[in-house]
Amino acid sequence: MPEEPTIDSIKRAAGLIAPHIHRTPVLTSRALNKMTGAGLFFKCENFQKAGVFKFRGATNAILNLKEEDASSGVATHSSGNHGAALALAARLINVTCYVVMPENAPKVKKDAVDGYGAQIIFCEPTLASRESTLKEILARTGATLIHPYDNCDVIAGQGTAALELCEDTRHLDIVMAPVGGGGLLSGTSIAVSGVSPTTIVIAAEPQRADDAYRSFHAGKLIPVEKPDTIADGLRTSLSPLTFSIIRKHVFDVLTVSEEAIVAAMRYTWERMKIVIEPSAAVPLAAVLSNRGQFTGKRVGIIVSGGNVDLDNLPWSR
Amino acid sequence: MPEEPTIDSIKRAAGLIAPHIHRTPVLTSRALNKMTGAGLFFKCENFQKAGVFKFRGATNAILNLKEEDASSGVATHSSGNHGAALALAARLINVTCYVVMPENAPKVKKDAVDGYGAQIIFCEPTLASRESTLKEILARTGATLIHPYDNCDVIAGQGTAALELCEDTRHLDIVMAPVGGGGLLSGTSIAVSGVSPTTIVIAAEPQRADDAYRSFHAGKLIPVEKPDTIADGLRTSLSPLTFSIIRKHVFDVLTVSEEAIVAAMRYTWERMKIVIEPSAAVPLAAVLSNRGQFTGKRVGIIVSGGNVDLDNLPWSR
Repeated sequence: MPEEPTIDSIKRAAGLIAPHIHRTPVLTSRALNKMTGAGLFFKCENFQKAGVFKFRGATNAILNLKEEDASSGVATHSSGNHGAALALAARLINVTCYVVMPENAPKVKKDAVDGYGAQIIFCEPTLASRESTLKEILARTGATLIHPYDNCDVIAGQGTAALELCEDTRHLDIVMAPVGGGGLLSGTSIAVSGVSPTTIVIAAEPQRADDAYRSFHAGKLIPVEKPDTIADGLRTSLSPLTFSIIRKHVFDVLTVSEEAIVAAMRYTWERMKIVIEPSAAVPLAAVLSNRGQFTGKRVGIIVSGGNVDLDNLPWSR
Repeated sequence: MPEEPTIDSIKRAAGLIAPHIHRTPVLTSRALNKMTGAGLFFKCENFQKAGVFKFRGATNAILNLKEEDASSGVATHSSGNHGAALALAARLINVTCYVVMPENAPKVKKDAVDGYGAQIIFCEPTLASRESTLKEILARTGATLIHPYDNCDVIAGQGTAALELCEDTRHLDIVMAPVGGGGLLSGTSIAVSGVSPTTIVIAAEPQRADDAYRSFHAGKLIPVEKPDTIADGLRTSLSPLTFSIIRKHVFDVLTVSEEAIVAAMRYTWERMKIVIEPSAAVPLAAVLSNRGQFTGKRVGIIVSGGNVDLDNLPWSR
């Protein structure tokens, strides 16, 4: 297992990627504060390049690529957002990018990866197929694997969003992030414990892909078997690296129903007039489903992304 | 015809309403700049209270209400946005608000007016029915009419959005606003010619409700007969007052197809990750439909509002 990133890795990443990323705004909403009884601060990574926080981690990984490795390119597997982010980041230093994607990924995500100039290789929508296809690509091309979350540079990059959130907001009682593979949550929890040790970090996860919840409470890694959630960015399972970080720095993991995710997503569109994807609505869903725990608290929320298939919205199904 | 508002009326309005409104952000989008060849600056009134610029004009009218008139309340007719804005503004000084609305107004707009505590009176979806119903309410209650656009305080309030846009952006070549009844366009054109005389103002209007286009080019008021556009905020016709202002201060009126409106709305959601209503997409649609005219220009766009019925999106019909 690689060495875990530290607050210093995150601060270094922040300096390195600053010229390339958007410093996204922190928005507030009186309507949602009223609805939750909390003071919510939304770090809007839906406004990030490629429409998602993952551009931070991908850019940090690309900028840390060894010079001798650059000519063979980079490769990854991804349900879409990491693939798009890596494709866009790879352009910064003109390296070839190979992305293994499940055939059933949302069209908007396929188009983004393609539009950013990456080479897409489709696979079956199973972890096994993703991994074997990726292995083959790596063997054939000599590309460097940039894993979506089991990678220290990626985790350090993702942590820069929470770093900015803490810098741009007076003291927060709680910071919340969604959890899938755990890259964003790991980076967030290291950043927050590093710069604001009295702030607790709470993870939010779909009930239908609740490996982080079960692993956290069992004290051992329990991968999710058949994730089946609308939050397509959160269908992956923790890795040993992200689980180890999360056990140290995360206070609790809350799970939410599909209905709560859709409702929170819709509230955000209606009240805040911003487009967020289902995965990004999971923390707000957790606040709305556990109001008592958040009443009167100042709560930072990482709004992870805004890449939605507008032809297939959850409330129109 | 009442005296026309001046740049000083708008500056006074800006000071008066400042404590009550959001100073909305000006956003940019590399993707949309690339798509249009222009430098676009979006003044995001979709983030305004009540989700629409109309809160500015309504607040200015409410704060200018004579003390002896306040106890009888205020009344208006509205396709929805002005009604909601007036209802919310009326709360600032606790006056009763009566809103005459067509039965076929979008549900989200009916709910907003109701949620802000106004009394709704439904009418047939014709101008004649709106006006007769309103007349009856005014006679019965003694309320003060706050017309959606044929009112100097309202126009001055609407102009404050363009004033802020000019303050927050380096010199613009063009400022664009959508035109329905002409309140926003009148206020915008007075503000821009007042603070930045070398900036031209261009109006954008749906082809299917093109009274401003026809009136502007004929040099006389030609009301629209059967407006039939998805841009529900722009179905109204100019008044003598707004027409007079527009003739003096507006450089041109461009019209756009329904398809162009839907495409521009969708681009904005997808690329900028913000929720805007069809009426608010009309200026961008005009830029996209007339690229040559805007190439290399710095173009401010008033994004008028974000109140959309999420159950009835134009690309799902």
